[in-house]
Amino acid sequence: MRKPAHNPRDLSLYDLDDILGTIDREVRQRFGEGKVADYIPSLADVPIDRFGMALATPDGRIHEVGDARERFSIQSVSKVYTLTLAMQAIGDDLWKRVDREPSGDPFNSLIQLEYEKGIPRNPFMNAGALISADVILSNYEDPEKTLLEFMRARAGNPEVGTDEVVAKSERESGFRNVAVANFIRSFKNLDNDVQDVLDFYYLQCSLCMDCVDLARSVLYLADGGHCASSDTQVTSPEVATRINSLMMTAGTYDAAGDFAFYVGLPAKSGVGGGIVAVVPHVMGLCVWSPGLDEKGNSALGRYALHRFTRMTGLSVF
Amino acid sequence: MRKPAHNPRDLSLYDLDDILGTIDREVRQRFGEGKVADYIPSLADVPIDRFGMALATPDGRIHEVGDARERFSIQSVSKVYTLTLAMQAIGDDLWKRVDREPSGDPFNSLIQLEYEKGIPRNPFMNAGALISADVILSNYEDPEKTLLEFMRARAGNPEVGTDEVVAKSERESGFRNVAVANFIRSFKNLDNDVQDVLDFYYLQCSLCMDCVDLARSVLYLADGGHCASSDTQVTSPEVATRINSLMMTAGTYDAAGDFAFYVGLPAKSGVGGGIVAVVPHVMGLCVWSPGLDEKGNSALGRYALHRFTRMTGLSVF
Amino acid sequence: MRKPAHNPRDLSLYDLDDILGTIDREVRQRFGEGKVADYIPSLADVPIDRFGMALATPDGRIHEVGDARERFSIQSVSKVYTLTLAMQAIGDDLWKRVDREPSGDPFNSLIQLEYEKGIPRNPFMNAGALISADVILSNYEDPEKTLLEFMRARAGNPEVGTDEVVAKSERESGFRNVAVANFIRSFKNLDNDVQDVLDFYYLQCSLCMDCVDLARSVLYLADGGHCASSDTQVTSPEVATRINSLMMTAGTYDAAGDFAFYVGLPAKSGVGGGIVAVVPHVMGLCVWSPGLDEKGNSALGRYALHRFTRMTGLSVF
Amino acid sequence: MRKPAHNPRDLSLYDLDDILGTIDREVRQRFGEGKVADYIPSLADVPIDRFGMALATPDGRIHEVGDARERFSIQSVSKVYTLTLAMQAIGDDLWKRVDREPSGDPFNSLIQLEYEKGIPRNPFMNAGALISADVILSNYEDPEKTLLEFMRARAGNPEVGTDEVVAKSERESGFRNVAVANFIRSFKNLDNDVQDVLDFYYLQCSLCMDCVDLARSVLYLADGGHCASSDTQVTSPEVATRINSLMMTAGTYDAAGDFAFYVGLPAKSGVGGGIVAVVPHVMGLCVWSPGLDEKGNSALGRYALHRFTRMTGLSVF
Repeated sequence: MRKPAHNPRDLSLYDLDDILGTIDREVRQRFGEGKVADYIPSLADVPIDRFGMALATPDGRIHEVGDARERFSIQSVSKVYTLTLAMQAIGDDLWKRVDREPSGDPFNSLIQLEYEKGIPRNPFMNAGALISADVILSNYEDPEKTLLEFMRARAGNPEVGTDEVVAKSERESGFRNVAVANFIRSFKNLDNDVQDVLDFYYLQCSLCMDCVDLARSVLYLADGGHCASSDTQVTSPEVATRINSLMMTAGTYDAAGDFAFYVGLPAKSGVGGGIVAVVPHVMGLCVWSPGLDEKGNSALGRYALHRFTRMTGLSVF
Repeated sequence: MRKPAHNPRDLSLYDLDDILGTIDREVRQRFGEGKVADYIPSLADVPIDRFGMALATPDGRIHEVGDARERFSIQSVSKVYTLTLAMQAIGDDLWKRVDREPSGDPFNSLIQLEYEKGIPRNPFMNAGALISADVILSNYEDPEKTLLEFMRARAGNPEVGTDEVVAKSERESGFRNVAVANFIRSFKNLDNDVQDVLDFYYLQCSLCMDCVDLARSVLYLADGGHCASSDTQVTSPEVATRINSLMMTAGTYDAAGDFAFYVGLPAKSGVGGGIVAVVPHVMGLCVWSPGLDEKGNSALGRYALHRFTRMTGLSVF
Repeated sequence: MRKPAHNPRDLSLYDLDDILGTIDREVRQRFGEGKVADYIPSLADVPIDRFGMALATPDGRIHEVGDARERFSIQSVSKVYTLTLAMQAIGDDLWKRVDREPSGDPFNSLIQLEYEKGIPRNPFMNAGALISADVILSNYEDPEKTLLEFMRARAGNPEVGTDEVVAKSERESGFRNVAVANFIRSFKNLDNDVQDVLDFYYLQCSLCMDCVDLARSVLYLADGGHCASSDTQVTSPEVATRINSLMMTAGTYDAAGDFAFYVGLPAKSGVGGGIVAVVPHVMGLCVWSPGLDEKGNSALGRYALHRFTRMTGLSVF
Repeated sequence: MRKPAHNPRDLSLYDLDDILGTIDREVRQRFGEGKVADYIPSLADVPIDRFGMALATPDGRIHEVGDARERFSIQSVSKVYTLTLAMQAIGDDLWKRVDREPSGDPFNSLIQLEYEKGIPRNPFMNAGALISADVILSNYEDPEKTLLEFMRARAGNPEVGTDEVVAKSERESGFRNVAVANFIRSFKNLDNDVQDVLDFYYLQCSLCMDCVDLARSVLYLADGGHCASSDTQVTSPEVATRINSLMMTAGTYDAAGDFAFYVGLPAKSGVGGGIVAVVPHVMGLCVWSPGLDEKGNSALGRYALHRFTRMTGLSVF
């Protein structure tokens, strides 16, 4: 019999700063790949030659590289946190209103929604995130404040905020989201006023954070629901495990299979170019680079995560 | 800061036999759940009150319970092994002919195949498995012998064989598979004679093995490509990782999201009621119980795996 | 050789009042078939045991039976007239924004709209009618007045009006229509404000007319574009011919094939239970009975038209 | 009131030979439009610069122009005749196995077939024609002889035959048809051996006829089921009416709406470039020109029919 392989979860075996440095150099040579989201001006104006990456471990340490302290619009990355809030509020009742299967279709497709009678395929499609938003509106006294305080506490950064200009632009250009929300409403799967649900959704998408904020923010999903920044138990280990599974099968639009194949970590992306990822039991990560691939995920962010799991062996597979 | 959680991969922390015993008792109280596949007589005749489970670790140990030594028709579980053989033969060229995304549709759906011009969504749909079969026919001298020897070596059991009656029944009732194969052929995505591809496919589905055979057989995917039974490197660690990722996002028909959520392990199921699963770096597993849920996965097999990861913390998430 | 059959278009061969009387008796024995539309109260309150039928010929004569003078909500029947106004305004440019094929899907389906990038399948789906509405808003000074005057002149009845309560109910319950309109807008296939387009659409749907009004109103499509009520040429013979063809292939939701098969006349139905039909060169018809079949067409209206073409031989086929 | 328009069905008002001559000249100036079908050599070898047109009236007269005596492969035009035979055999029971709605999808699409559980949308899709073939195999003693004698009697031409080379080529290249047939069979909607059904289907597609043959052959649908060539009642007036309605809504693949709009006649096309059309009560027509448009209908055949109905006013609308 062969001798056992090293344990990839033993971080003392790696020089993480060295690994991040290598990735940063590789990524910067590929600047220009992908295409910056252009459906609203605030996103279109972000320069494509940006890359940041940060890791946060349960002991409170941060490793970072590149533009990891530059804030960006987190967009759909926010769906992870609103899902957490919605699960905290109503538990498994959420699954009567949204399914847990990968979609195979773009994030804003209406097709499956029609075949499946207004039940979104998963909480990370836009349609599914509207369900989370609706649950939050129904179950928290001050939904906006709740979300903002949640994000600040997770990031350990009281300056986390939203970008009014982004939220306003989303509101003015979001015809597809208005369509999706009214479509779900027509199946009676929204309880609150359609416009209120959309306004909350635009707000969450307009959250501005940097890679360090987000790496810290996602750490509770790597640590059985425990948030290091605030030293509180945000959710149960079981809920954390399940959110990770949903990120794996549905966190990167209709490229979830590709992400599992090349990266091998639960991850959630946004059109602002950010991606959070989780190494269960080990760390939270965030990468950011604004150029998107054709599926809507950060092209170089995907590359960076791919390199990271290949260099460390930290893929869950 | 909290003190670190125990390492769930440290098997010395568990009494695996005790855990299996508990699961066996729980499962037997639920006998009757699901419905035995009835599209061919050989499957329809299997009694529903059967349950077996086996674990194989890289050190060669086996833990087993219940009907773990009763042979059954492995059906689609075989797709894991033919995928391995196809990847060994042509490497990444395989991905020009089959995609790696979850399907969201039943295993034998033709809809996506039409929209995507004869490129199956993933290697675990029937359509995708026909591509693997076609590649094997084109690249191995004696395809049937190759497959049989591969399975015997993986299982460490020279008595692994196929069931002629099952293969013949599949051939006689497989109109949908004939449709799928000719459809793919119409897009020029099969090189060999359609009937030859189908015959090989029916043969692989008719393999008969027991839980112990299959737990051993899948162990190379948990151990970086190394097969303990034969002490050989079957494939590279990277290929093993990738096959695991495909099992996670596409191994259980259109219930992959649900399996990730409830079980949290890469797994591949078959309509014979068998499911193989992998705990990366730790073990190979097989459960078997013939009653299928509405998605075509073993209802009690799914339950047993769910209980196993909850009792051990061995979910990858 | 056989001697030639009689010419079914020679109306002197029939006693039309006798035929209508027979149909009326047959229909009244079947009262209760179908289900009254219930998505808004004003429709749900209409008694199911109502039936009216009227024929209008180019010489100005009217034949009528039953509740042919009871007003009802014309709903989607209005799409015929707004299509006429839109074609008058921009001619064949309309076909850059809407297709002319049958849909095969329900009137408010979003699926094809997504596959076909915001181009509705035909002008009689809700999506297509929104295009007509948008064209009218862009091309007529006072769109509401234009429509109302058009309807009054066609019917020869200055009392034709809209029902505010219906329009308001539609506005309050039309989440699906809001979804469709925003979805089209997201493909940039609406020029006007989404809410303005919807408001015009709700207005047209709320028109209240009786069978005699509608039989007269549709007569121009049977008479080469000439309106007998106002003795004016409403549109060209070619446009009239084409609108008839569209009614044949798309006028009765996804039952167009069935209507062609059983009735054999160009027809347009509405969920208020009204159906207008055209015998080219011969007459305009209207039937009304509020009980709808599962495709959304008046169950007894369809039966009455079927009996009419069987008794007269006036099917176009 | 205006004075009544002329009766377009009064053929003494036209010089049909003059009209055909004009159409022939116009068409020949457009030679080159479309693309000859190339999936089998026998079709690919037909020169694109061919055009024929023939009209047959109930009194036995023929008007013809161009290459109206050149034989071609009638392909899907044959579906009209096999539908007639199937309806004669089992009447309305046919509609339990095939629907009557337009498809909106290409002739050989499998998508709707899957959603609708093996029930083809209409008898003119390939799937629907396989149902007709299956019914004929089950209900006529010598199916091939029955079909051949039917065609010879309709055409009044004992030399009508099939082309063995075409039938053989179809058999060798028809993977899509094999897929469709097996798919239907998997829903238990074929009674006969799949290969037998396909062989009959390939035979009917390989029928070779010229425009004069086909204009005569389709005349019974214009004349209440009466065939002038054989002076026999082929089917009832009602069945003739219904087959015409099916040609209108489904006879030209997914261009039925366009054909109704531009041509306005019940018509059935084939990939050999032939199209039969019916002016109810007046005449049977056939046009032929091998260049196909993107929907698979003869590009110049469609143009010729469009010109014909515009010049005569003989559109049914």
